[in-house]
Amino acid sequence: MATSDALQTVNDTPTRQPFALDDALALLARTPGSVDALLRGLPRAWTTATEGANTWSPFDVIGHLIHGELTDWLPRAKLILEHGNSRPFEKFDRFAQRESSSGKTLEQLLDEFALLRRRNLDELQSLRLTEADLDRPGLHPELGAVTMRQLLATWVAHDLDHVTQIARVLARQYSDEVGPWRAYLRVISGQQG
Amino acid sequence: MATSDALQTVNDTPTRQPFALDDALALLARTPGSVDALLRGLPRAWTTATEGANTWSPFDVIGHLIHGELTDWLPRAKLILEHGNSRPFEKFDRFAQRESSSGKTLEQLLDEFALLRRRNLDELQSLRLTEADLDRPGLHPELGAVTMRQLLATWVAHDLDHVTQIARVLARQYSDEVGPWRAYLRVISGQQG
Repeated sequence: MATSDALQTVNDTPTRQPFALDDALALLARTPGSVDALLRGLPRAWTTATEGANTWSPFDVIGHLIHGELTDWLPRAKLILEHGNSRPFEKFDRFAQRESSSGKTLEQLLDEFALLRRRNLDELQSLRLTEADLDRPGLHPELGAVTMRQLLATWVAHDLDHVTQIARVLARQYSDEVGPWRAYLRVISGQQG
Repeated sequence: MATSDALQTVNDTPTRQPFALDDALALLARTPGSVDALLRGLPRAWTTATEGANTWSPFDVIGHLIHGELTDWLPRAKLILEHGNSRPFEKFDRFAQRESSSGKTLEQLLDEFALLRRRNLDELQSLRLTEADLDRPGLHPELGAVTMRQLLATWVAHDLDHVTQIARVLARQYSDEVGPWRAYLRVISGQQG
């Protein structure tokens, strides 16, 4: 029937949220606690587990998130406010944590991430960004033209991407141990929802 | 050089952990806190967001995890202890939360999940499972022969699968808002790993 087909089409559409600064702040504030609850105190074999060569362990991911707090998100937002798209962002070093995390414990990294995130969100709020500010253009060294809104939305999605990564790396440690249930576990079978 | 090639081959292998009851307990104990930290207090548009028809929101996932605590994991473990593979497990109802979560808030569900999980882990510990118990056979109604060890490993991986799902559903709400950064965000572009 035409009516139910139309309804089906509507329901098939994934939901999307429009960017809102308050939502972004709420989401960004939650990441440190979530990864802390997941990882703190786990045996080291789990927190340093990987998906193979050139893939990251949970420990590596937290170091990467710290480096983002120090050099990526808020510094880029401030660059946009000060210089718009007249200066490209500094390139982000995806491997900085190899050195910066060296000799630290996971617990130290979790503390550091939480502290830096709190400070950065305080500073972000203090900028009192307007809708006009969110439209301001920036210049990404590889992607080209971007906006403040896209930068802040990406900060949120990037956090969540790494939450999926941490949970996936942990889950896959039992790829063999789950036996025939492997077929039901998308995180292990490799299918994505 | 042969030496570094050999090393490369070793490093290419993803890490795997052998099943250990203490590890499983440590991981299972962390899930409620992690999803609570991620979700509690978020705007309802986010906690009820989905990836389209017949996909689950974070709210749906917590209801599903509750149903697992009530009817799946520990009840199946006790069935294996009592009846081995002479009786198949009850089938698990993947849609039970449609009714059981109805009228509840996310916060109620998070509290309920945390309470049930704590009780179930207490009971699991009180069973004092031996290595021989972990080898005990069970009968899955669809998958056939399984073991206690596989059941418990799957409980862990199933939790983490749903943590990835929750973070993915949230991240994808900004699929459009991230603009050109979409190319860098595996959780949005759909690439895994």
